[in-house]
Amino acid sequence: MLIARVIGNTVSTVKDERLVGRKLMIVRQTDEYGAPQGKPFVAVDTVDAGVGDLVLTCSGSSARQTNQTKDTPVDAVIMSVIDSLTVDGKTVFSKNA
Amino acid sequence: MLIARVIGNTVSTVKDERLVGRKLMIVRQTDEYGAPQGKPFVAVDTVDAGVGDLVLTCSGSSARQTNQTKDTPVDAVIMSVIDSLTVDGKTVFSKNA
Amino acid sequence: MLIARVIGNTVSTVKDERLVGRKLMIVRQTDEYGAPQGKPFVAVDTVDAGVGDLVLTCSGSSARQTNQTKDTPVDAVIMSVIDSLTVDGKTVFSKNA
Amino acid sequence: MLIARVIGNTVSTVKDERLVGRKLMIVRQTDEYGAPQGKPFVAVDTVDAGVGDLVLTCSGSSARQTNQTKDTPVDAVIMSVIDSLTVDGKTVFSKNA
Amino acid sequence: MLIARVIGNTVSTVKDERLVGRKLMIVRQTDEYGAPQGKPFVAVDTVDAGVGDLVLTCSGSSARQTNQTKDTPVDAVIMSVIDSLTVDGKTVFSKNA
Repeated sequence: MLIARVIGNTVSTVKDERLVGRKLMIVRQTDEYGAPQGKPFVAVDTVDAGVGDLVLTCSGSSARQTNQTKDTPVDAVIMSVIDSLTVDGKTVFSKNA
Repeated sequence: MLIARVIGNTVSTVKDERLVGRKLMIVRQTDEYGAPQGKPFVAVDTVDAGVGDLVLTCSGSSARQTNQTKDTPVDAVIMSVIDSLTVDGKTVFSKNA
Repeated sequence: MLIARVIGNTVSTVKDERLVGRKLMIVRQTDEYGAPQGKPFVAVDTVDAGVGDLVLTCSGSSARQTNQTKDTPVDAVIMSVIDSLTVDGKTVFSKNA
Repeated sequence: MLIARVIGNTVSTVKDERLVGRKLMIVRQTDEYGAPQGKPFVAVDTVDAGVGDLVLTCSGSSARQTNQTKDTPVDAVIMSVIDSLTVDGKTVFSKNA
Repeated sequence: MLIARVIGNTVSTVKDERLVGRKLMIVRQTDEYGAPQGKPFVAVDTVDAGVGDLVLTCSGSSARQTNQTKDTPVDAVIMSVIDSLTVDGKTVFSKNA
């Protein structure tokens, strides 16, 4: 999984029928402290994440293992909102800080 | 999924029989504002996208989850035409703008 | 799929039994004009491509969706020989040019 | 598989139900001597690895082949703690050294 | 598949039970002439390759298509020892040279 920050969302009218009703968020991978790095990608939100949240994303065929994405043409999913990150014994990110 | 722009298409006579009748578009990944970045790749168009359109592409085994690509040797598919992109609360791309 | 140019081939005596009789070509990804870029990789040829041909390659589990590669430990396949590439309305590559 | 070092962990309350009770560790890929390189990612720990351990991680659909990750939306798993690494006949890493 | 050189091996006591008895080799991707490039990774050896051998590796779900790796949490396998590489009609690598 990747640590990623939700930065926005996409809207599409013309799409595969199995995507109707799915929230497609724009995210960017971060480092272990939550700082964004690299190119953005789009993931289906299955946990009601919001813009600004730090989340875990899952890619590939594993992205189809949630109830909302089964048999759907999606290759990335947000499956967790991160509360905290601990590196070498120190809390380096806390959602409520 | 990746945000990508359709830049062209490919034509092939010699190909796997399951690809007959499929539209193979050349796309390039973009950043969250729709600006192309990185190398081109080829994706099967399932939503009648046109050159210049901003689209979402899905890769890997998930690319075989559309009606048009089931059991087909393809690893990337266009499954949505993007109407708009919103980043940090601002609309940064709109198809009809 | 990737646009790639066939640059050579590999020969192996010691190999998984399901690879016997398969042609293993060395290819390099190209840009949208057919110019090679990046590292080489090896793909099973299913369309009788030759050295110098511009082809489409398919990777991952989708590479096992051809009759010749079903249930085989291969992760890349050549599934099409490219006749032409069109970018922004112009033909930028033609096999017979 | 990648050689990686465990550098920390993540805590999440809001997550896919199949992730409840799973340990999600932050790891970084290393070179063949155990020196970290590149971006961090998150892997499910199936072998009770600790922070500082050098481990092997497995990605993609193969990450769902352990008893703890079957049918779960995860794309990376720690499936081994490394005792030693040998390169060109020399032991370059030993856990108990 | 990638062209890779076997540079060493890993030893693990604590590991997923399906890995018991498997040889886990450290390899590095090479260019089309056999010169190592990029980061090392670990692949299950299914063809009795030795350190120094040039091999083909297969990644992802396809790595589970050998008799030794079926239903196993591994994402890379050595499935061939390379005898020779030919590029643009010239033999650029020969095992017995």
